[in-house]
Amino acid sequence: MPVGKVVIIGSVAFDAIEGPGGSVKDTLGGSATYASYAASFFAPVGIVACVGEDFPQDAKDVIAERGADLSGLARLPGRTFRWAGKYAPGFRGRETLKLDLGVFASFTPVLSGALKAEDVLLLGNIDPDLQLKVLEQAGDRAFVAADTIDHWIRNKRESLMKGLARTDLFFLNDEEAELLTGESNLIAAGREIRKMGPRNVVIKKGEHGAMLFGEGEMAALPALPLEQVKDPTGAGDVFAGAMLGYIAGKGKGRSGALREGMARGIVMSSFVVEEFSVGRLRGLKPEEIDRRLSRLRELVRF
Amino acid sequence: MPVGKVVIIGSVAFDAIEGPGGSVKDTLGGSATYASYAASFFAPVGIVACVGEDFPQDAKDVIAERGADLSGLARLPGRTFRWAGKYAPGFRGRETLKLDLGVFASFTPVLSGALKAEDVLLLGNIDPDLQLKVLEQAGDRAFVAADTIDHWIRNKRESLMKGLARTDLFFLNDEEAELLTGESNLIAAGREIRKMGPRNVVIKKGEHGAMLFGEGEMAALPALPLEQVKDPTGAGDVFAGAMLGYIAGKGKGRSGALREGMARGIVMSSFVVEEFSVGRLRGLKPEEIDRRLSRLRELVRF
Repeated sequence: MPVGKVVIIGSVAFDAIEGPGGSVKDTLGGSATYASYAASFFAPVGIVACVGEDFPQDAKDVIAERGADLSGLARLPGRTFRWAGKYAPGFRGRETLKLDLGVFASFTPVLSGALKAEDVLLLGNIDPDLQLKVLEQAGDRAFVAADTIDHWIRNKRESLMKGLARTDLFFLNDEEAELLTGESNLIAAGREIRKMGPRNVVIKKGEHGAMLFGEGEMAALPALPLEQVKDPTGAGDVFAGAMLGYIAGKGKGRSGALREGMARGIVMSSFVVEEFSVGRLRGLKPEEIDRRLSRLRELVRF
Repeated sequence: MPVGKVVIIGSVAFDAIEGPGGSVKDTLGGSATYASYAASFFAPVGIVACVGEDFPQDAKDVIAERGADLSGLARLPGRTFRWAGKYAPGFRGRETLKLDLGVFASFTPVLSGALKAEDVLLLGNIDPDLQLKVLEQAGDRAFVAADTIDHWIRNKRESLMKGLARTDLFFLNDEEAELLTGESNLIAAGREIRKMGPRNVVIKKGEHGAMLFGEGEMAALPALPLEQVKDPTGAGDVFAGAMLGYIAGKGKGRSGALREGMARGIVMSSFVVEEFSVGRLRGLKPEEIDRRLSRLRELVRF
């Protein structure tokens, strides 16, 4: 089965984070940063994103250090996207303190070339109108995955729905699934969302793991037990990036690729929350990933 | 490995239930009813409980129809325990509208004879002081499991803690685990509770499944996907009864018995919530149980 690359459209940002795990400022973040770093463990990766003139070389070096193709990372006049957020005790909910889109406000993502049938496109959680613009360029051959957040469900529902019709795999969390469907039962919500277009839906449930609603299949895996969480920022992006990296790297049509990919998503997100930014993923060894995969298998064995 | 029976101490009650799945009155309930009915699919069962003079023969026939030993079901002067409760929309939380202990108020459970090493004792969620009285009679050979509710954690913590030291398997739900330990992280809570005495702890998470914290092992299984829930009353008792029935029926020392039992708990509780009372368990066929076990295995396969 031909293997492809993962092309990730998303943000590259600087985050300021306060929470039970401590506080950091000007730390490297953004959905494209997190997702590409995670995906790179499983497949070749390319990024389509933008940064401002204030973006330093050493931050770019971090994103590049696992071989991601950064030819689609535009450097634009202005400031890099900045986000400041605060987590509640026990990481129950978070609040956005400040959001400065900077160069991202006027960014139009451009794919450098046609995607091949074996490639995977991840539309990170950006404005659904931008997602649609990328979809127009993507052709109809690549496997398309999309992520979103509650903000777009509330404010750009129509554009979001248009994109869903062309989505092979849609990621959202449990609260977003309820917001999108009005269904408090996640099983009913998952089925409803599939009716909106996406062939496969993954509902992320944080510490409770994730569920996959596919064509004639359903999967549910628990999260890995973690006692020490430092920062959950980016966990969803890492989940998506790892899952898609696995799918691209193994051949998207391979039987079981989705559920195997979901397991990689769970494992990689269990690492990233242990440190701020992509700190825990830097220098992560394949054996460490394998060990957590074994732990996940052991957890659900009966 | 010698197989044993499950002896269940708990309540036999009449429930009045209002909720999203409809309303019923005078429906057969109680922790011993639910747990014994579920356990009977996997092992011989005996009940130690009491009813009032108002308890009709046909209700007793229901409890007996799968062969449970009812010689420990006392008929006492007065009324049978009655509970009335109301579920919130989406079954998010429930409220006790009325609680009339009736004959249960002055009931002292008495075991009819010594338990054998291969037997399993389930202390259903009754007053921890009563649980202690049963423990005194039980000797130190049988496998002891105990269930509780938030009410006892709040009001009888000291007695509860005494019993925990002699408990092989302790059941509680996620909210109760946080209440007991002050830990919002369930993994930390599970470990804390094991330090209080029980060799194994199961934290039930409703629609998110259940976790087992054992000696050198941890397991986490999702719940079975259910779109139609009629009444979650008794689901926790059925979970415990099925798990212990499996453990007693297979031999408690058998490797994997706890996690295999937990899978049976998840399967049997997925049935009971589909109807009021034990309606869905009556006439349930072994093939139906096997099919849901296969579905659970398929759900977590990767």
